[in-house]
Amino acid sequence: MGIVLGPNRYGKAEVRLVRVVRDDATHHRLADLTVSIALSGDLAATHLAGDNAHVLPTDSMRALVFAFAREQPGEEPEEFALRLARHLTTAYEPVHTAQVRIHAHPWERIAAAEGPHPHAWTRAAGSRYAGAVRNADGAEQVVSGLDDVTVLKSTGSEFHGFLTDRYTTLEPTDDRVLATSVSARWRHAARPEESDLGADWTGSYAAARATLLRTFADTRSLSLQQTLYAMGKAVLDEQPRLAEVRLELPNKHHFLVDLAPYGHDNPGEVYYAADRPYGLIEGAVLRDDAIPAMPELPW
Amino acid sequence: MGIVLGPNRYGKAEVRLVRVVRDDATHHRLADLTVSIALSGDLAATHLAGDNAHVLPTDSMRALVFAFAREQPGEEPEEFALRLARHLTTAYEPVHTAQVRIHAHPWERIAAAEGPHPHAWTRAAGSRYAGAVRNADGAEQVVSGLDDVTVLKSTGSEFHGFLTDRYTTLEPTDDRVLATSVSARWRHAARPEESDLGADWTGSYAAARATLLRTFADTRSLSLQQTLYAMGKAVLDEQPRLAEVRLELPNKHHFLVDLAPYGHDNPGEVYYAADRPYGLIEGAVLRDDAIPAMPELPW
Amino acid sequence: MGIVLGPNRYGKAEVRLVRVVRDDATHHRLADLTVSIALSGDLAATHLAGDNAHVLPTDSMRALVFAFAREQPGEEPEEFALRLARHLTTAYEPVHTAQVRIHAHPWERIAAAEGPHPHAWTRAAGSRYAGAVRNADGAEQVVSGLDDVTVLKSTGSEFHGFLTDRYTTLEPTDDRVLATSVSARWRHAARPEESDLGADWTGSYAAARATLLRTFADTRSLSLQQTLYAMGKAVLDEQPRLAEVRLELPNKHHFLVDLAPYGHDNPGEVYYAADRPYGLIEGAVLRDDAIPAMPELPW
Amino acid sequence: MGIVLGPNRYGKAEVRLVRVVRDDATHHRLADLTVSIALSGDLAATHLAGDNAHVLPTDSMRALVFAFAREQPGEEPEEFALRLARHLTTAYEPVHTAQVRIHAHPWERIAAAEGPHPHAWTRAAGSRYAGAVRNADGAEQVVSGLDDVTVLKSTGSEFHGFLTDRYTTLEPTDDRVLATSVSARWRHAARPEESDLGADWTGSYAAARATLLRTFADTRSLSLQQTLYAMGKAVLDEQPRLAEVRLELPNKHHFLVDLAPYGHDNPGEVYYAADRPYGLIEGAVLRDDAIPAMPELPW
Repeated sequence: MGIVLGPNRYGKAEVRLVRVVRDDATHHRLADLTVSIALSGDLAATHLAGDNAHVLPTDSMRALVFAFAREQPGEEPEEFALRLARHLTTAYEPVHTAQVRIHAHPWERIAAAEGPHPHAWTRAAGSRYAGAVRNADGAEQVVSGLDDVTVLKSTGSEFHGFLTDRYTTLEPTDDRVLATSVSARWRHAARPEESDLGADWTGSYAAARATLLRTFADTRSLSLQQTLYAMGKAVLDEQPRLAEVRLELPNKHHFLVDLAPYGHDNPGEVYYAADRPYGLIEGAVLRDDAIPAMPELPW
Repeated sequence: MGIVLGPNRYGKAEVRLVRVVRDDATHHRLADLTVSIALSGDLAATHLAGDNAHVLPTDSMRALVFAFAREQPGEEPEEFALRLARHLTTAYEPVHTAQVRIHAHPWERIAAAEGPHPHAWTRAAGSRYAGAVRNADGAEQVVSGLDDVTVLKSTGSEFHGFLTDRYTTLEPTDDRVLATSVSARWRHAARPEESDLGADWTGSYAAARATLLRTFADTRSLSLQQTLYAMGKAVLDEQPRLAEVRLELPNKHHFLVDLAPYGHDNPGEVYYAADRPYGLIEGAVLRDDAIPAMPELPW
Repeated sequence: MGIVLGPNRYGKAEVRLVRVVRDDATHHRLADLTVSIALSGDLAATHLAGDNAHVLPTDSMRALVFAFAREQPGEEPEEFALRLARHLTTAYEPVHTAQVRIHAHPWERIAAAEGPHPHAWTRAAGSRYAGAVRNADGAEQVVSGLDDVTVLKSTGSEFHGFLTDRYTTLEPTDDRVLATSVSARWRHAARPEESDLGADWTGSYAAARATLLRTFADTRSLSLQQTLYAMGKAVLDEQPRLAEVRLELPNKHHFLVDLAPYGHDNPGEVYYAADRPYGLIEGAVLRDDAIPAMPELPW
Repeated sequence: MGIVLGPNRYGKAEVRLVRVVRDDATHHRLADLTVSIALSGDLAATHLAGDNAHVLPTDSMRALVFAFAREQPGEEPEEFALRLARHLTTAYEPVHTAQVRIHAHPWERIAAAEGPHPHAWTRAAGSRYAGAVRNADGAEQVVSGLDDVTVLKSTGSEFHGFLTDRYTTLEPTDDRVLATSVSARWRHAARPEESDLGADWTGSYAAARATLLRTFADTRSLSLQQTLYAMGKAVLDEQPRLAEVRLELPNKHHFLVDLAPYGHDNPGEVYYAADRPYGLIEGAVLRDDAIPAMPELPW
């Protein structure tokens, strides 16, 4: 019997990068990214003996993020993640797998007298996600997504017919407020012959985001699970190149306040928005003939 | 010499209230509010002797918020704050002053096939603020504002000519990224003859918000102080009924990354967005003939 | 009628400074500080015209914090705040008032085989506060305090005899859980002849902290207001050089869970710890013959 | 080709439970827990058709947490997690796997005149973790751990001999500040014949915590990876019943400030504590003959 090193990785987390693309002196574009890198590979020597010959300092990863950003100004986050992952797995022999995670923070142009301002923005809610993994043998995958997109519908949501026992005090309902903060991921390239290098990442992102919101709004909900599946399926239905959608949907409860003690009824009007506890529904929707996800894919 | 009770107040903080206004079965309106109440008055007995006869339990304030919300469904936050403050200072004799603070969280209708969805929303960035104070003698004031509106401009900002000494290493610049998270307040009713009871609070809010953003975008900045003053003055110029604007503008630094060690120039393209420390600029802009602010006004 | 500049200030916020004092090669002391500076003075030119001749860049304040830290290694936070405030109001003519705020984050030595480790620590809960103000005319004051010290007592707290009306559903109780997160400040130098320059700041801090906790624990509470007053008074009773204590005590509600639907009683055993809303009790306790607080004192 | 439901689970997250054990009228014990439950099983019907017959409402899970807490007052968090997991997988036929996560928030007795106070506490830093998984076929595993234990050593840490290339600007060092916020997990029951039902969970926790801190303090660090491995190995060396230790160690960088521009040297005294980016080192240390971890174990 012995004690051994198990799975491990390391990297630089949350490099805060803002790229300004100057189309001309006054018209600019903006990318606001938080980039994280994690590497695994032949790292036993540093763990067991403090021999760092195989360790690329996380400070160099930070430098790499900034330098690479300079080289390809207008790039989409998925491309940037892939380009970093490819460099990391080809330039450094001890690196067997590179994972890159990017959160892109959205900014909208400020409304000026003459229309959208050419170089002034206000930050919008939510964030876009792009992740890439690459192995030293050249296998790679890309995942896109969004986080912190909070949605609510004030009708069109039911919940009844559930399992009951002695711990049940919840009343069945055929009309409740349903709210959640969507965290979604969709994996690209369902089939091996597909190359996503020429993909319209931003177009795909915008379409998936719109589909998720519209499906949340339009689906009559019988459970948050059913809404989750409908949201994921709608994205796959519309984008055949996508292999899989994963969703995390916290059920942000809104409880109808009992106003009877104060002499009022409350016909679906005044709610208390609770912080904790909250329901948490997680699930995947996938094509049954899609390539499997690589285990190291940074969802 | 003795030890005595000084200024004091108490209340309920952060009541999370969501109001649904049902125009009909499918078309709804939504208000998502965080309401806080603070009362002061004749409270020596509870502090000195634990005699609570003058203490309205904070639980009753919570109840009051929900019950009052039921009574006036479509109300604007400023009206709601005033109505609560008036009740608190008239219904309870020991209460001499009531402060009400409301943060309204913005939601936008989800884009559906037929246009904005009638009862499904997604939460937007930032928040709207409304505060009211009322004394038992009937004096009252209202303040409006916004929080967490983050803005950035990628040119049109200079900073030079500043005081230098042995601690100066900052280089003067005639072109920098300027970013801040705006926290703004504007006080209503500059003159005693004005009654704001019939005010178009939401119209005033929307106009002030647009003015603040547009002024930030369009003003060539020589310092964040100058931008602050320009923003406040523009709001007062456009809305003569407003008495005063107060702004808190953290300078969210974006530092140009030195890419020379990696063989790149960096002509205003790749920035590092720092978390801390940050500059913090605070200031007021006011009409010199306006009624003074009440000391208890909840800015 | 005109629009004018009102009260204003600016500075650098949250400089994160760690000082290591090396008593010898292996025995060290540690100070972990977050320092914020705010200046006011003759700043009309930058606000109105973007003329920065009177503006000390916030970057220079950052530099000053680090450089001054080097000069007086073992200093207490109050001394450090005062020293910075004195320099800022004497070295820079446009500065009329300097406010310095310091949060000191506590670290405890890790328990090693031979006792407390000479140079390894683990971070403890809460933080110590020190604030100083100085005017160009030499007036100065110091305030100390603590933040985020969360306390709870499981008996010895009552709440009854309160004001009731139609919004009352709270039941009176003679035994509840009482919990709060203490934010406390105490102002030094009650009398003009006192100089605090030779004060034992750390001894005073440790005594005040112990008194606040012990008084919370030992006082039979009839209201959180009564507990607040008792806590403040106890500190003043024990430290005659202190002028005033201010406390902010959020009432972190713990509600007894109704287990009857599941066939259990609940004799003060199982509680739900609520996040929001919460009660918020604020108050000052002071000596009636103390020097008044300077209006710019950074509480 | 079809679209199908993939892996999924759901549950109640962050039930905030405080248990008071009343040894007698004045001497109490306290447990402050945040409990989360996640279930998976036969859930296709709710996802695909909104048929909730197999769905235990998350509200019932909340009730279950509170009711079960009443039944076994003095229980350790690992026992509580296991007891909940066993009930969930035996009482509800559609549930195939139950995961329970508990964070226990530490409180220390307030120092009173006569010693540790019998019923008043102050909250300490960090948190203890306990997780359990159980399948419907009776397989079960338990993991313990800790979170948010921040440690720092001001000497005894080197970093050199690392891989360099054109992105390297980091200088090698033989004396740096090393700081991290430890997140650790250790899996129980290395061998099938071991039953942990009689385990001294709290004793094991206290020993593992002390070992992790002491090893961090005493190990001369050549890399954070080496420190990680040493910490994990030390826990396994001392507790033969443990199968595996997993650690996440963010490298909280402390940079020596360059004071030369201000006329000072800086011999390891004044540091800037950076927020982002940070290094992130993750790794496992395990016995090569241990039972493998169940895939659903809630680490």
